[in-house]
Amino acid sequence: MILDPAATWSLHPQLAADTLGVGDLPLSRVLISLDANYPWLILAPRRPGLVEILDLDETARVQLMEEIAGVAGALKQVTACDKLNIAALGNVVPQLHVHVVARRKNDPAWPAPVWGRVAPRPYDQAKLDRFVAALGKKLGLDGDC
Amino acid sequence: MILDPAATWSLHPQLAADTLGVGDLPLSRVLISLDANYPWLILAPRRPGLVEILDLDETARVQLMEEIAGVAGALKQVTACDKLNIAALGNVVPQLHVHVVARRKNDPAWPAPVWGRVAPRPYDQAKLDRFVAALGKKLGLDGDC
Repeated sequence: MILDPAATWSLHPQLAADTLGVGDLPLSRVLISLDANYPWLILAPRRPGLVEILDLDETARVQLMEEIAGVAGALKQVTACDKLNIAALGNVVPQLHVHVVARRKNDPAWPAPVWGRVAPRPYDQAKLDRFVAALGKKLGLDGDC
Repeated sequence: MILDPAATWSLHPQLAADTLGVGDLPLSRVLISLDANYPWLILAPRRPGLVEILDLDETARVQLMEEIAGVAGALKQVTACDKLNIAALGNVVPQLHVHVVARRKNDPAWPAPVWGRVAPRPYDQAKLDRFVAALGKKLGLDGDC
């Protein structure tokens, strides 16, 4: 795809409504999905016009993979989950974003994927604050994004 | 995780039952999911004991990303799909594998993810043969795996 070099990136309004920012890695914004059913992070590469992973050049794809691995490792440490689910879907929100979800064998969708299974459940604020703080510490991020 | 260096990789029996091999890239075996509802490829890195992308070292993760991009690009060219869905889930089959699915806005699950939505539909053999040949040509693979 042709990207407009003068365009600036901003988070898609649907992602902005459904998430809380943890901070920015070199390529991607790290977001927490506001669904307390699952510890669920989203990486959104901060370049305008991206839809597919293929729209990134090789250098950026490698950076995205390393950011996925870093975030997945932090999430696994923070949650002691049974399995990680990592996915770039984008059928509903076209802006490129990668889901990194900590799955537990007793979560409401297991073993199915999380999308569209049960209604999102609001976070208890204190629990969300602890989750943000634990992730931010692991990733060296301060929540400023 | 600790990997046994003497162990040899073999494709998980469930993946073997559900797919057809297209060929081997440097890291991964390329498989076609035998569900004619969607043009659906699976990459299975050929190293024993892998469960998570995190179980790969950085060099292998980068290789996996480039193989994902190569396969996704070939699939997009062959199918002229509306969207690619790329995912490492593994909640049911624990051996590390990455789904690369060509989605169309009129496919039976759109816009939901493909997993668990509708029953797999068998391929017409001639259609499957054409799909294997077209992919093999794009990827430089000969189906021998």
